[in-house]
Amino acid sequence: MFLTQCLHRGIAHHPDRIATVYGERRRTYRQFFDRVAHAGGALRQLGVKPGDRVCVLALNSDRYLECYMGVLWAGAIVNPANTRWSKAEIVYSLNDCEPSVLIVDDNFRSMVDGVQAEAKSVRHVIYIGEDEAPPTGMLAYERLLTEAEPVPDAFLGNSDPAAIFYTGGTTGYPKGVLLSHTNLLAAAFSRLALGYVPGNAYLHTSGLFHLTGALGVMWQFLSGGTHIILPGFDAEKVMATIEKEKVTDTLLVPTMIQMIIQHPKLEQYDLSSLSTLVYGGSPIAETLLDAAIRAFPGASFIQGYGMTELAGAICFLPAHYHTAEGRKERKLGSAGRASVLSEIKIVDAEGQEAPRGAVGEIAVRSASTMIGYWGKPDETAAVLRDGWMHSGDGAYMDEEGFIFIVDRIKDMIVSGGENVYSAEVENAMSKHPGVASCAVIGVPSKQWGESVHAVVVPKPNVQIGAEELIAHCKGLIAGYKCPRSVEFRATLPLSGAGKVQKGLIRAPFWEGHSRNVS
Amino acid sequence: MFLTQCLHRGIAHHPDRIATVYGERRRTYRQFFDRVAHAGGALRQLGVKPGDRVCVLALNSDRYLECYMGVLWAGAIVNPANTRWSKAEIVYSLNDCEPSVLIVDDNFRSMVDGVQAEAKSVRHVIYIGEDEAPPTGMLAYERLLTEAEPVPDAFLGNSDPAAIFYTGGTTGYPKGVLLSHTNLLAAAFSRLALGYVPGNAYLHTSGLFHLTGALGVMWQFLSGGTHIILPGFDAEKVMATIEKEKVTDTLLVPTMIQMIIQHPKLEQYDLSSLSTLVYGGSPIAETLLDAAIRAFPGASFIQGYGMTELAGAICFLPAHYHTAEGRKERKLGSAGRASVLSEIKIVDAEGQEAPRGAVGEIAVRSASTMIGYWGKPDETAAVLRDGWMHSGDGAYMDEEGFIFIVDRIKDMIVSGGENVYSAEVENAMSKHPGVASCAVIGVPSKQWGESVHAVVVPKPNVQIGAEELIAHCKGLIAGYKCPRSVEFRATLPLSGAGKVQKGLIRAPFWEGHSRNVS
Repeated sequence: MFLTQCLHRGIAHHPDRIATVYGERRRTYRQFFDRVAHAGGALRQLGVKPGDRVCVLALNSDRYLECYMGVLWAGAIVNPANTRWSKAEIVYSLNDCEPSVLIVDDNFRSMVDGVQAEAKSVRHVIYIGEDEAPPTGMLAYERLLTEAEPVPDAFLGNSDPAAIFYTGGTTGYPKGVLLSHTNLLAAAFSRLALGYVPGNAYLHTSGLFHLTGALGVMWQFLSGGTHIILPGFDAEKVMATIEKEKVTDTLLVPTMIQMIIQHPKLEQYDLSSLSTLVYGGSPIAETLLDAAIRAFPGASFIQGYGMTELAGAICFLPAHYHTAEGRKERKLGSAGRASVLSEIKIVDAEGQEAPRGAVGEIAVRSASTMIGYWGKPDETAAVLRDGWMHSGDGAYMDEEGFIFIVDRIKDMIVSGGENVYSAEVENAMSKHPGVASCAVIGVPSKQWGESVHAVVVPKPNVQIGAEELIAHCKGLIAGYKCPRSVEFRATLPLSGAGKVQKGLIRAPFWEGHSRNVS
Repeated sequence: MFLTQCLHRGIAHHPDRIATVYGERRRTYRQFFDRVAHAGGALRQLGVKPGDRVCVLALNSDRYLECYMGVLWAGAIVNPANTRWSKAEIVYSLNDCEPSVLIVDDNFRSMVDGVQAEAKSVRHVIYIGEDEAPPTGMLAYERLLTEAEPVPDAFLGNSDPAAIFYTGGTTGYPKGVLLSHTNLLAAAFSRLALGYVPGNAYLHTSGLFHLTGALGVMWQFLSGGTHIILPGFDAEKVMATIEKEKVTDTLLVPTMIQMIIQHPKLEQYDLSSLSTLVYGGSPIAETLLDAAIRAFPGASFIQGYGMTELAGAICFLPAHYHTAEGRKERKLGSAGRASVLSEIKIVDAEGQEAPRGAVGEIAVRSASTMIGYWGKPDETAAVLRDGWMHSGDGAYMDEEGFIFIVDRIKDMIVSGGENVYSAEVENAMSKHPGVASCAVIGVPSKQWGESVHAVVVPKPNVQIGAEELIAHCKGLIAGYKCPRSVEFRATLPLSGAGKVQKGLIRAPFWEGHSRNVS
């Protein structure tokens, strides 16, 4: 299982097919292959050896993809950096991952100006931006390609390390997730096993530093198709690009689908070329799915569930369950079933398999399971036990193996012996028209063990009271799940990935108390 | 990548689905899983340790499948023995492979009676036949299952050895091909990546000792479907079983398809349930394909090409090229293209990649490439060079990467500087109504280097002359390809797998001469 093999096959089968489209720039598989071989040669000339790390800090582009594959070609480990991070976070990850080369585009050239003083491992910075001349102290990518001799593919594979992706880090410092060639390929195969059309046109809208973006890299190279690349998500640009490039496949999260559906110019674009839309991050609401089907009349919908530690996706809800016929089976609220190279079980707090229908933690045994956290054996051992990756996600499994995610395990509240899933309570709260966002946590309670507490950000210029909100919830969910206390704040603390940092909200309440999971 | 994982997933997703059908006997996934766990326990009790070999010498059955998976469950290596072999060949392979346990059915109980005297490694013989009482000296399978405690799955995978299959051995002694978990899974995935329906009904007709049979084991367990098992191929039983069990998928070689098409009772059976027919061994003639489409009106056709050393199949001609529309692309005579986990190149005698269209040897780099020949490092090194498996098959590749097989490399004849493919000449000869079978070889020639020589078995009671046959060929193929000499024989020497042993025919002609490839 070799990540670069798809390029060799691309050259053998369709050298003149377009490999990458970035704006007006188009390159064939032959050109892409040639540039990757030169990029590999350039990295080698800069002293990059097999096993070394090369960091890419850039928005999506064709050059990003060339570098991604070029690093693998040279036998090194690619580290796509989180483009949403602050400079301090970037410096932290550079010092953790210790890449010898850093590759940046125009968006990050100023951020990394002089970064070598703070990240000592970085010996060279390569500029892949669009300016002719590189910034001072950086090497020009195009010139490196021209001057470097192409090298043969190092052709590493199987359990060899291929990439390090940093997790969002909602608690504590971010961790580098080390993935092998097999990890990444197995995740891509799980998707291909659901059916695909060779030579299709895939639109990249998600950042390649995240697995939702990186998955598309592998499954598209494996299927031998064309990569249509946008620097990032923009609803109108996505629509315009689908129409212009006759995009057949893409991956979006439900929020992005929502933004497209609600876009005032939706009707102006022909989106009928789209044949498969993979979404992830959460199940899709039936009303949103209906609107999405109207917007993308030719598309099948597939949900993927996974996490960085599982190389992206190990569980899928196939297209069938999204159709009128399939919806009768009522699996749309599910995250699907273990993929063809994976196995899922729901475990209780003691690590024993829970009965069907009982909520516990999702544990996964898969060809996609990470090698481990980079340089963190203790953190690795804490989640990877007996070959099972413990996800931290709370869910139950039905009789047919479909999993239904209820909450993050650490966000579950045990109140009076009953499990309360904060996500369910937040869902109910959010339906109140005055609520902009909210977070529900457990706080210490002598009587109940934990008591349900809500932190609410009201919509601008809206006045709502605690009692009104609690009454609203009682109309939607069982009484014991409803908040016993509500407080109002102007903002909620968010992680770099935009997730609410409940740990930070919870901490002050628990000072002097102990909680089973923090 | 773990071969037994599909059973765990089967239990999670569809424990009550039928896993195996053998005659009137049906077992669910739960039952199958349970029996495999007990079979694993029984093998452990008999002293089988991880890495040990267990040989199965039996026609296809549900118990064969249980043992196959049970051996893997115990962490051992399964060695499905060639059911077409003589006792001497079986004893040879047992002494080469050294299994500690031998499993036999009713068809081979007499053959292996007292075999332990000749194959010292065999400590136990397990009887999986249908009689209540086992033959003397053998252990009763059902009783072992009842008495053994189930054991946890050893859960080996990835590069761990999983199986040893013996090659036909048209020259010299047969060789054991050692395949890993990844090897077998990668081959199965290459098929699944072409599209499949989860939970389908697959009919096993090919012997499980051959990769054409064993491939079906893996792709069917991966897709979570039902195994319908026949002991072997019988045209009418195949038709009756397709109708009765509503079989959706199977694998046949063109000769078997021919036997079904020509069967007098073809019209009496409803074969419309068949949705995918994989065939291998050779391309399918257009007339045969047309007849097959009429016989199986619901079926898509997929060709697979591979060999034991490549865990079965690494190259596929997808269904599209068999349709009226797809046939316009004229790939039907091709063996297809490298699968999604493989790479193919055509190499010349010096090992350099040949230009497109030029005939050379098929070399393959694939996740399916064997670990090596069991206990034969020199023979392994001779074919596995720089990660490329050298197939011994002569072929050319077109501009789109499709390969067209012309002959075994060692059977190609170089006459007057021109390549002559014995297969092409035999094909022409076979069109003469008087020819039952024939073999075309190169014999030493002072003038031409090699000269084309034909050995012909005439049809019973037919008189044909050499000149008549040569003239017949001249009407079909270029003059330099036609035989310069013809001899008539009553039979041709055949291998256990039914292949003509050209090496034996060639040998007497080459005594005292040297030939580049023997």
